[in-house]
Amino acid sequence: MEILDGKKVANEIKAEIAAEVDLMKARGEKVPHLAAILVGTDGASLTYVGSKVRSCQRIGFESTLVQMPNTTSEIELLKKIEELNENDDIDGFIVQLPLPPQIDEQKVLLAVNPDKDVDGFHPMNFGKMALDMSTFIPATPFGILELLDRYKVDTQGKHTVVIGRSHIVGRPMSILMGRKGFPGNSTVTLTHSRTKNISQITTQADIIISALGVPGFLKAEMVKDDVVIIDVGITRVPDETRERGYYITGDVDFENVSKKASYITPVPGGVGPMTIAMLLKNTLLARERHRARS
Amino acid sequence: MEILDGKKVANEIKAEIAAEVDLMKARGEKVPHLAAILVGTDGASLTYVGSKVRSCQRIGFESTLVQMPNTTSEIELLKKIEELNENDDIDGFIVQLPLPPQIDEQKVLLAVNPDKDVDGFHPMNFGKMALDMSTFIPATPFGILELLDRYKVDTQGKHTVVIGRSHIVGRPMSILMGRKGFPGNSTVTLTHSRTKNISQITTQADIIISALGVPGFLKAEMVKDDVVIIDVGITRVPDETRERGYYITGDVDFENVSKKASYITPVPGGVGPMTIAMLLKNTLLARERHRARS
Repeated sequence: MEILDGKKVANEIKAEIAAEVDLMKARGEKVPHLAAILVGTDGASLTYVGSKVRSCQRIGFESTLVQMPNTTSEIELLKKIEELNENDDIDGFIVQLPLPPQIDEQKVLLAVNPDKDVDGFHPMNFGKMALDMSTFIPATPFGILELLDRYKVDTQGKHTVVIGRSHIVGRPMSILMGRKGFPGNSTVTLTHSRTKNISQITTQADIIISALGVPGFLKAEMVKDDVVIIDVGITRVPDETRERGYYITGDVDFENVSKKASYITPVPGGVGPMTIAMLLKNTLLARERHRARS
Repeated sequence: MEILDGKKVANEIKAEIAAEVDLMKARGEKVPHLAAILVGTDGASLTYVGSKVRSCQRIGFESTLVQMPNTTSEIELLKKIEELNENDDIDGFIVQLPLPPQIDEQKVLLAVNPDKDVDGFHPMNFGKMALDMSTFIPATPFGILELLDRYKVDTQGKHTVVIGRSHIVGRPMSILMGRKGFPGNSTVTLTHSRTKNISQITTQADIIISALGVPGFLKAEMVKDDVVIIDVGITRVPDETRERGYYITGDVDFENVSKKASYITPVPGGVGPMTIAMLLKNTLLARERHRARS
């Protein structure tokens, strides 16, 4: 059993991007600039956005954090998005989800200029991904592909089972693993809340990508020997014995499943760190494409 | 065993649309207008486009056929597309594929205004489909959903196996069958040329959608009892005993598979006629959305 060490790989990627930024600076070029819009004061969102901004600073990107109050109207947010769309200094930006209930998430996603949509959530970019065109791949799926790639996990002709059909992980992952090329060329089964006999399906899987958010859902008896496990679940479980008051856990019963697996991602330290690294990678791509256009 | 009679259902849909057009005329409204661009003189393409135009005429739509020579340059075609994009009288249009080799198909698809893209091939529309937003669903997948719907074939929690990952049928079908709602909520496996042990997968399927283009590929021993079979394969097999010089056949060994199936589409007369009916339906939708915007 080998650990797919997302923390280590994410650090390698960040170091590669930082070296790229140094070259840009040495050539007197503008460095990538990522902006993030945060509406409200949700604790987890604050943590995620803060972490993204700090990562930008560490690798030499410019970054801008736009904080808006919880009472922000949809029109105010759309106006801010239009500002970032038109601001030529900003190469890419994200709108941290979830948004407060008075704001229509779909309208917001559609308002982001696809060329600056480094989250890859705009339907234009999602469609390009599904149609095998060059685009921004959403950071978490992109991170999973990168992890499989760097560990040279064989995916061709393998049976990949994806658990969960979210727009952010499950559905894009199910598309990406079945595309031509590497990592890809898998036979892909997408399972979800309406799936019957899920164990019967997971026990046939060569690769399982679980993005359900149910701690300990995937148990040893649900997988076959030598399975590859990608655990995308990130659940905060309250725990008063910890200083932070909670601990982070995934969808997989790691202790027992890891004994049968050939490769497995830990939680934390697996897919999580890759997500931020790939957001930075997308921002670098956005900068390069921006330069090519102008 | 019940035949999923695409010809019959397509005629019902056309009659419904014709009735809608009559109402539009009675209200003094503009009727839907579909345009088709045909580049070159490929026999099958001519047949398909001719059939689309005739169907428009029969149900009371306006239609325009733009024929361009085989030597048309990419720039000339893009200019024509821009004309149709800007022509307010035209609600939707299609560019018949395949295109001659001097023209980049991807550029052409991206040039079509997504609001007029009644084929649903533009990445913006494809992305909206994958993200569960309202859009134009490509005609063949839309036709399959409609057939399943009208025959009330249960899809929820069923295991649907899609054979073939084309942009036009396999991939969109794999997405649509796994979406929430009806028809949908299936556990979906997408198989393709790199899939190993395909029989092992198809024998587990409650529903099989085959879009491979290999005559007689799916045999009786590859399916379980009571399977639902949707045969999207349309292959012209040369046959000198026929007046046309060929006959049309699907991916499924109909004679033997039909004995085990609960529902099955014939070829011809199954999915084929549904495709044109749904193109007309999309054109009607395009007209309604066009009116709502103006």
